[in-house]
Amino acid sequence: MRTLYVIGIGAGDPEQLTLQAIKAMNRTDVFFLVDKGATKSELVDIRRQMLADHVRDKDYRVVEIPDPPRDRAAAAYESAVTDWHHRRAGVFSEAINRELGDEGVGAFLVWGDPALYDSTLRIFDLMLAAKSVEFEYEVIPGITSIQALTAKHRIPMNRIGESIHITTGRHLAEGLPAGVDNAIIMLDGSCTFTQVPGDDVDVYWGGNVGTPDEVLIAGSLRSVEHEIEVQRAELKERAGWVMDTYLLRRRKD
Amino acid sequence: MRTLYVIGIGAGDPEQLTLQAIKAMNRTDVFFLVDKGATKSELVDIRRQMLADHVRDKDYRVVEIPDPPRDRAAAAYESAVTDWHHRRAGVFSEAINRELGDEGVGAFLVWGDPALYDSTLRIFDLMLAAKSVEFEYEVIPGITSIQALTAKHRIPMNRIGESIHITTGRHLAEGLPAGVDNAIIMLDGSCTFTQVPGDDVDVYWGGNVGTPDEVLIAGSLRSVEHEIEVQRAELKERAGWVMDTYLLRRRKD
Repeated sequence: MRTLYVIGIGAGDPEQLTLQAIKAMNRTDVFFLVDKGATKSELVDIRRQMLADHVRDKDYRVVEIPDPPRDRAAAAYESAVTDWHHRRAGVFSEAINRELGDEGVGAFLVWGDPALYDSTLRIFDLMLAAKSVEFEYEVIPGITSIQALTAKHRIPMNRIGESIHITTGRHLAEGLPAGVDNAIIMLDGSCTFTQVPGDDVDVYWGGNVGTPDEVLIAGSLRSVEHEIEVQRAELKERAGWVMDTYLLRRRKD
Repeated sequence: MRTLYVIGIGAGDPEQLTLQAIKAMNRTDVFFLVDKGATKSELVDIRRQMLADHVRDKDYRVVEIPDPPRDRAAAAYESAVTDWHHRRAGVFSEAINRELGDEGVGAFLVWGDPALYDSTLRIFDLMLAAKSVEFEYEVIPGITSIQALTAKHRIPMNRIGESIHITTGRHLAEGLPAGVDNAIIMLDGSCTFTQVPGDDVDVYWGGNVGTPDEVLIAGSLRSVEHEIEVQRAELKERAGWVMDTYLLRRRKD
């Protein structure tokens, strides 16, 4: 049976690769890299370099899959994303059937961890449900941008016994749930932290953490929110892309 | 200046070690292992084996630090934990001053990730605030038991665009916050999932994930909750210890 690995490769620093990830890479015939277009080509380059550095046991091929366009202007966020996932499932199935024989081993390399705000596992479920392609698969966890962020700031995600809420910029715009004292925000392209009310919130922010362009800012949210906006824009200009994550923590009396 | 590493070593499977963790291990003179007593000696053994397998560049010593007892019967959870952290800070400082010279490199090996429900970073802050010992330090992220769990179940932590709530058994006993559809529970020694109301909740449970004794159970919470209780007790008996984590997900209409 054809085998696929979904491999978490960490949040940008190639040293975040696990031994498990490297072993799976060394069993892989074909790496499928989803190509999101020219502005993100550096992200393809980093993955090609990881393979060059760590695959020793096997000849391999890299197949780039052009990502179907997504309707980012759609009013209904969830149905626009679902539609996009179905189109991705079609393109992935086609590539796997074309490139990988019945006994072949393929891999998808995922930034961060495949379980956290990544669509690959959902697309695998769609492909299997549609029976458009047959395969066994295994998931290999990876260090997330959240963990890279807190390690660089040398902070725990929570104070003693507290809960942690992980959410998106889209949800943060509606306000944090009552009682949430530690919120980690991902997928925020709009600096939504500026809309969070209160003078009792600290922020720990990081952009392109683990890469040579890394920027870290921490402090009282009201004091540093403008600096984060400015540095985020400069980072995007300098690196060509920006991936940022942040922790908001309500101070205790 | 004396340097310390706080190294996340993954959730039980030695292959979850990252390249960054292994590099830091190979720069370390003294590994401080916190010894929690006889029942958890297997957990000390796994760490000693990791060092034997991966440290090639340097002679090293292992120093076991006996963990001060914690008052688990105290009514005030937070102040009991704070008191315990202060006593740990005293014991850690004493061990570092005794075992590590001014230019020495030490390391603490932490299960999972040092940012997630682990006290080492808090104890470092206490030691530095008390000026009881001087050092520089660096934090290295590790794969958490949450990530090991979701990888083995091959599920994402969230459905499209949803938030994720990470909390403790203690908080779950008070009920899940309104609007939380994905909750990940850690530090639950009492099978608190049996107290969660509703027939619309699925559970993905794992015990000692990544070790040879691993047990995985998934299904409708009401259908499998008893099986989890039984298997958890058997696992604890068989392995001598149990570390379990689970994801609760509310089904959509």
